[in-house]
Amino acid sequence: MLSQASIKSVLFTEGFLHNKVKINREVTLQTEYEQLLQTGRLYCMRMDWKENKPNRPHQFWDSDVAKWIEACAYSLATHPNNELIKKVDEIIDIMEKSQMEDGYLNTYFQTVAIGDRFKNLKNNHELYCAGHLIEAAIAYYETTKKNKFLDIMCRYANLLCVIFGTEKGQLHGYPGHEEIELALIKLYRVTTEKKYLNLATYFVLERGKQPNYYDLEKEKASDHISFYDYVIPSLKRHAYIQAHKPILQQTEVVGHSVRALYYLSGIADVAYETNNRELMKTCHRLYSDLVQKKMYITGGIGSSLKVESFSFEYDLPNDIAYAETCAAIALVFFTNRMFLYESDSKYIDTLERVLYNGVLSGMSLDGTSFFYANPLEVKKRAVDMDVLGLKPHMGYGRKKWFGCACCPPNIARLLSSLGSYVYATNNHDIYISLYTSSSFTNKDTTLLVKTNYPWDETININMNQVSNSFSTLYLRIPGWCKEYTLKVNGQNIASTLEYGFLKITRSWEKGDNVTLILSMPIIKIISNPNVRQNINKLALQRGPIVYCLEQVDNLDDLFSLYISKDDKFSHHYDKSLLGGCTYLTGHVKKIVSNHELYSQVSSVTYEDTTIKAIPYALWTNRQPGDMIIWINRRYE
Amino acid sequence: MLSQASIKSVLFTEGFLHNKVKINREVTLQTEYEQLLQTGRLYCMRMDWKENKPNRPHQFWDSDVAKWIEACAYSLATHPNNELIKKVDEIIDIMEKSQMEDGYLNTYFQTVAIGDRFKNLKNNHELYCAGHLIEAAIAYYETTKKNKFLDIMCRYANLLCVIFGTEKGQLHGYPGHEEIELALIKLYRVTTEKKYLNLATYFVLERGKQPNYYDLEKEKASDHISFYDYVIPSLKRHAYIQAHKPILQQTEVVGHSVRALYYLSGIADVAYETNNRELMKTCHRLYSDLVQKKMYITGGIGSSLKVESFSFEYDLPNDIAYAETCAAIALVFFTNRMFLYESDSKYIDTLERVLYNGVLSGMSLDGTSFFYANPLEVKKRAVDMDVLGLKPHMGYGRKKWFGCACCPPNIARLLSSLGSYVYATNNHDIYISLYTSSSFTNKDTTLLVKTNYPWDETININMNQVSNSFSTLYLRIPGWCKEYTLKVNGQNIASTLEYGFLKITRSWEKGDNVTLILSMPIIKIISNPNVRQNINKLALQRGPIVYCLEQVDNLDDLFSLYISKDDKFSHHYDKSLLGGCTYLTGHVKKIVSNHELYSQVSSVTYEDTTIKAIPYALWTNRQPGDMIIWINRRYE
Repeated sequence: MLSQASIKSVLFTEGFLHNKVKINREVTLQTEYEQLLQTGRLYCMRMDWKENKPNRPHQFWDSDVAKWIEACAYSLATHPNNELIKKVDEIIDIMEKSQMEDGYLNTYFQTVAIGDRFKNLKNNHELYCAGHLIEAAIAYYETTKKNKFLDIMCRYANLLCVIFGTEKGQLHGYPGHEEIELALIKLYRVTTEKKYLNLATYFVLERGKQPNYYDLEKEKASDHISFYDYVIPSLKRHAYIQAHKPILQQTEVVGHSVRALYYLSGIADVAYETNNRELMKTCHRLYSDLVQKKMYITGGIGSSLKVESFSFEYDLPNDIAYAETCAAIALVFFTNRMFLYESDSKYIDTLERVLYNGVLSGMSLDGTSFFYANPLEVKKRAVDMDVLGLKPHMGYGRKKWFGCACCPPNIARLLSSLGSYVYATNNHDIYISLYTSSSFTNKDTTLLVKTNYPWDETININMNQVSNSFSTLYLRIPGWCKEYTLKVNGQNIASTLEYGFLKITRSWEKGDNVTLILSMPIIKIISNPNVRQNINKLALQRGPIVYCLEQVDNLDDLFSLYISKDDKFSHHYDKSLLGGCTYLTGHVKKIVSNHELYSQVSSVTYEDTTIKAIPYALWTNRQPGDMIIWINRRYE
Repeated sequence: MLSQASIKSVLFTEGFLHNKVKINREVTLQTEYEQLLQTGRLYCMRMDWKENKPNRPHQFWDSDVAKWIEACAYSLATHPNNELIKKVDEIIDIMEKSQMEDGYLNTYFQTVAIGDRFKNLKNNHELYCAGHLIEAAIAYYETTKKNKFLDIMCRYANLLCVIFGTEKGQLHGYPGHEEIELALIKLYRVTTEKKYLNLATYFVLERGKQPNYYDLEKEKASDHISFYDYVIPSLKRHAYIQAHKPILQQTEVVGHSVRALYYLSGIADVAYETNNRELMKTCHRLYSDLVQKKMYITGGIGSSLKVESFSFEYDLPNDIAYAETCAAIALVFFTNRMFLYESDSKYIDTLERVLYNGVLSGMSLDGTSFFYANPLEVKKRAVDMDVLGLKPHMGYGRKKWFGCACCPPNIARLLSSLGSYVYATNNHDIYISLYTSSSFTNKDTTLLVKTNYPWDETININMNQVSNSFSTLYLRIPGWCKEYTLKVNGQNIASTLEYGFLKITRSWEKGDNVTLILSMPIIKIISNPNVRQNINKLALQRGPIVYCLEQVDNLDDLFSLYISKDDKFSHHYDKSLLGGCTYLTGHVKKIVSNHELYSQVSSVTYEDTTIKAIPYALWTNRQPGDMIIWINRRYE
């Protein structure tokens, strides 16, 4: 297993990711704090809410606060901030006072639904909140070395170890919304307490066994029927929450996409820690199903708007795409784990795709507003008239906050910890997974990376400090890259490609310089013809960046544009456009239409026109309008 | 103005329409009676429903019964049936007893919402029910000459004339769901009572004036906010019910499509009867908007599934098409009126398109089940998983009945009266609008038409009996027909084309024989490129029939099929297929796919395959599966 870089060891110095991380640290963390405060989420853990008072706590409120604390903790690792620490410590003090004697801690069940704890695991997000609090506690402990929050969560986890399991007298259940599994593995790793690993393993493997726990639970819980039971009859049998059969028997990734990917993350962790090869094979099987049949070109997943879930294979509608920001983030979590366990760059290919497109689209340039859903096509009139049956939070434009506010603090914690995804290590070896201007220090070796990736092809790596223990540098060659050149100190050198990484072993010296050039032609992408929504359409990509057309840059009617496989495009870096980015231009055609609604087929007439494409991740940062990723294909 | 043929004067003898009318008469009328009985609709006019009893009457129940009576009345005109008369008379007797002293008659407001009459015109369907009852009463009177029902409805209409109008003390309102307008014109024509014309004129012209009546009404009515006010914010300002501005200022057909077309029918009637040329111009304007921008190739209208309404121009989604059967029927009503007023075949072109496709698709071959919505594309897995956000009544397959049961009795009354759409007269002239084997008698002239249209090109018309008064025969040349031949008694004759009709004036004699051959090549249709949902797609049509591909006849994956503009198709009549119809076959291509979800563009590889297409009107009469009308276009 590779070691993920510690957050502290990576410093972003400039460029696209640097700017995102900076705005997150300097703006987003503060605006989210204010939202948590205003909506009552922040202090509800005082457990002083009473019936008829405002700000009635909701089942998942604890998780919103937890994710924000986690985001703060990661940020503090590289950017100390006493005021932030004070804010977090205040909440932790409240939690300490509010924790019940037996270790239980959940605002909703200590204020609104007293006495109902663990009675409705299917719908009530109780273990989900516990998982997020555990992750936050570990992050805060690792950054600050303060152990109060970690101790609180260990007490809660100890209670869970007593309550859940296969023994007589224990509840044989598991969470309706997965998350606790991966959190317990983290807790096991930080505490070395085996029982946390055992509980995670239990949750992963017990799920979906017969008789189904939720069927048994339903007989007792009056509120057991959820919204989703009504709207998705075909998924009634628990597939929506991945509990339709034991995980080892599952062949397809199904149901609510955030749950599915949090679950898969926990499964991968348990598979690795328990050396369960069948379980790891399950990860491979579901991963293949996902990337080969159920993922948008943006890396977005969960194409069913109506139920926030995976649809059937190859069903990837662009206009009613859900592609929740949280699901994109969850895909980062899962692919990162798989990469660490298997050292295979293919997982980073997916991670990079979703990060640079489907994740970063979720936050505005100024860091203050967010997308819940990330559609790949917007016809503004259809949104305004709501002829697509969109959910209320899917109206045009990003929003400051949501009633169900999972996405904003989730993207904040990912961006705060982003440094740890850039590098990985294996004893004396260093892996560079993502290219971005930054420094990385590992065991007295310090690399300085300088690049304008993803806009530029060239990556410079300077050995600022080298220890004797450093032997091999692994440089990722992205899956989209078909040609590259490598030089060390200006000389071409021989190197082998190993699972998508160039392996450079040598006796490194301070000042050694590595130059990698990843050829970035503009490529036109087609979907598998089974994706009926993208038939006779093309998309534009350069490097890891998926491009879109926004109305503000183009003709009013984006659907009148046609591109052929041979149309020439050029790329242009503009430091003043959308915070600095590379846009594409090209000579294409516009269809000429007559006035008939229906007419006998004839040859098509086109006019010349030009288009300008911008990175999808940066759309909706100017005036509102239509947007498309998939452009009509012209055949010549 | 042309005179519509009386129902009694037309007898279907064989063929497609004959079979539809026969099954409607022999099966549908009876099964609908049973549904009305079982659901409590039939006897609720006894006004004996009490709180907590079953079968609580709904606001539009009276209209369901009315349309069924109207259907029976038309059927009785050609096929006397004492048992049916007994059933209808029983209901009429009940109505007579239940009618209030002042003439008021409405089950909902005489049982459920006593005291609320005319307080919420916007939502409560009160005048809509009155309109349907009036239409039924006139139909029953005209067939049976019994005047009890007509007298009842005259008394009710007289009350409406007192209550509504511009005078002080009158309500200045108009119906939330139009229908009363066209009914009052019918009543005026049958009674010659001018006040009914005046009230219809008032309803047509008052609508949408400022201050808006619904704004005033809202201040008093507690239940004034309807479902639609929530779901269509952009249409809040009354456009959903065509009351956003006075009709003379309206330039687009908007809102709920059934309401819009019932309204337009009433507008055309009032324009004609009051010789209001501006009003008739409004009909032209909205008709052009409809047929040039807002109508499916099937003639279906109302593309917004969510709110049963028109969407913006060229927004014609195939999978979430609403295209309600009632809206298609309403389009028949409007285009028929426009044809009668203007003698222009272009209206029959639309009528024929919607009748043979978007209307007849609404009823199963056996006459017992119905579509509410008529989508143009079905991916059964998407329907089963409900990833499209479909309404409950849009699940796969036709249904026996609906909670809101407008469509079944509406199609029944159209089919019962279908004969009257086939012919029209103008003093001594006879117009043939629709070709179908039938006889027609007008002023001692009897024509016998023999044809297997719409499957066959040849139409034979025999003068079975000729009176001196008969001078000109007008034969419609459909808009889709580019070549035809005409012979009289085996000889080519000269004839002129006048507004889409061949005009044949001669001294007719008994036994004269006219043969018209309408060339029916299979044509491939493209949509206007502004219809983004049909880009790079083709549809197949032959004669007035729009074809579809059903999974049962073809490859499993209909979306893998590609046709080019030059692919050759042939047609085949099969008397045992779907009650007898012409299907199409052709050699087309199937795309070859690799396993990649996304890959760099390359030339497309195809394999040869064949397809079989059946008339859209006949789909879902065999085993369930996918269906498409618009097929991927291949360019060669």
